Amino acid sequence: MAFEFPIRVYWEDTDAGGIVFYANYLKFFERARTEWLRSLGIGQHRLREQTGGMFVVTDAQLRYLRPAKLDDELIVTASLQDMGRASLTILQQALLKPEHMTEATPTLLTEGTIRIGWVDAATMRPARIPSPLLEQLS
Amino acid sequence: MAFEFPIRVYWEDTDAGGIVFYANYLKFFERARTEWLRSLGIGQHRLREQTGGMFVVTDAQLRYLRPAKLDDELIVTASLQDMGRASLTILQQALLKPEHMTEATPTLLTEGTIRIGWVDAATMRPARIPSPLLEQLS
Amino acid sequence: MAFEFPIRVYWEDTDAGGIVFYANYLKFFERARTEWLRSLGIGQHRLREQTGGMFVVTDAQLRYLRPAKLDDELIVTASLQDMGRASLTILQQALLKPEHMTEATPTLLTEGTIRIGWVDAATMRPARIPSPLLEQLS
Amino acid sequence: MAFEFPIRVYWEDTDAGGIVFYANYLKFFERARTEWLRSLGIGQHRLREQTGGMFVVTDAQLRYLRPAKLDDELIVTASLQDMGRASLTILQQALLKPEHMTEATPTLLTEGTIRIGWVDAATMRPARIPSPLLEQLS
Repeated sequence: MAFEFPIRVYWEDTDAGGIVFYANYLKFFERARTEWLRSLGIGQHRLREQTGGMFVVTDAQLRYLRPAKLDDELIVTASLQDMGRASLTILQQALLKPEHMTEATPTLLTEGTIRIGWVDAATMRPARIPSPLLEQLS
Repeated sequence: MAFEFPIRVYWEDTDAGGIVFYANYLKFFERARTEWLRSLGIGQHRLREQTGGMFVVTDAQLRYLRPAKLDDELIVTASLQDMGRASLTILQQALLKPEHMTEATPTLLTEGTIRIGWVDAATMRPARIPSPLLEQLS
Repeated sequence: MAFEFPIRVYWEDTDAGGIVFYANYLKFFERARTEWLRSLGIGQHRLREQTGGMFVVTDAQLRYLRPAKLDDELIVTASLQDMGRASLTILQQALLKPEHMTEATPTLLTEGTIRIGWVDAATMRPARIPSPLLEQLS
Repeated sequence: MAFEFPIRVYWEDTDAGGIVFYANYLKFFERARTEWLRSLGIGQHRLREQTGGMFVVTDAQLRYLRPAKLDDELIVTASLQDMGRASLTILQQALLKPEHMTEATPTLLTEGTIRIGWVDAATMRPARIPSPLLEQLS
């Protein structure tokens, strides 16, 4: 049961190849992660002010299967794959929403595994994810 | 005598129209302004740490005359048009560098006027530009 | 009666000043313009395939009044200010959505006037906006 | 012997965490790959016009070790790790250039492995890398 977030492709996302620029899927994934955390009651701006910590990405793996184009409607997912004391691993997909209801299933365009670690924002050193946050995640 | 900074157009800068995305000229202008300030001995990261202040853009006017394309070499200029106690107005141009020496002059692609104001980084309130900085500018 | 489009501020939109990077309001404005055109039945990707033409921005004027921050919810507007045979002028605003219902009105953050011209996508030369499109706009 | 390309960190590259936004290393890597190809006499814009084909990224793996900050000078590398008939695998690193000559070696910030495949630009279908291009690469 992955969290799903709709994202529309705009001019800003595309490149001269006529498709979404490869780096921009990381933006899409970040938006979906943020909304997934928000859906769990976790606001990152507030968190940083309260705890002095924040998540940073430590690893990313991406597979680009099919390109997205201008005006496409994507569904971007986030699901927790692994949870440690100091990091989370999140599985994410960008799927093309079918234009017509009758089409069976969304097409997988890009898939990624993103590992995010908790750090002290001042020192950028890894730290334990605050307990209330861990509880909200489990 | 404008400050000149070379910028190459990469995939990231273009959109599905095959040309540089209109917002990205503001990135190019910001890079040229930064290098112009650096050429005057003004480092923005250091400034912020030392003074607690920073420049923010308050006004921008842009005229898009001709598009830039992937792999184009641009010359981006910055020249001080006006200097106040709390703000600077900078004239900026993005020009297409001629491919061959024999071609007379660079072609003007985009022109902008950017006004930047000095603010206290903590409150975001306007403040007077620090005197040493003003002296370096004049 | 301006068209309104909600936009959330994500990490990708911010810079080390802790606020939305000034160029990114042009992205927000473009998204709102696209959705405004879409709400009128005008799809840009389809238009280009059908007519071989597209809109490009020819002029932009921006006033930055107050900064937006990470996690802010913005309302971005688009309203047709002027319509010619070959270009449209659109007034756009980015407003901060009040966090609480009780707060009177959204705060104006950034305001812009964007002029877009119709061009032949192959030659990039200005051209008359196709009649069906002009009719949908009026 | 990796190809090296210098990249400066500007405001546009950073986020509200005060560091380079994680997606932007893919932009840096793409710039370095483009310049590496150009150094071998391979211009992508021209290639597409001549052959109708282009490279697209099919896989990306990134490890983020240390953050880059505003005004940092990076050295971004590209070296060919593997070459097939239809794809290339390129090892890339973003290193922090030491501020002072006396410091021993650049610090590794981010490391990535990028696989790019050759496609027909019209159909986006995988195709064999044109022979002259393969020869230039070996």
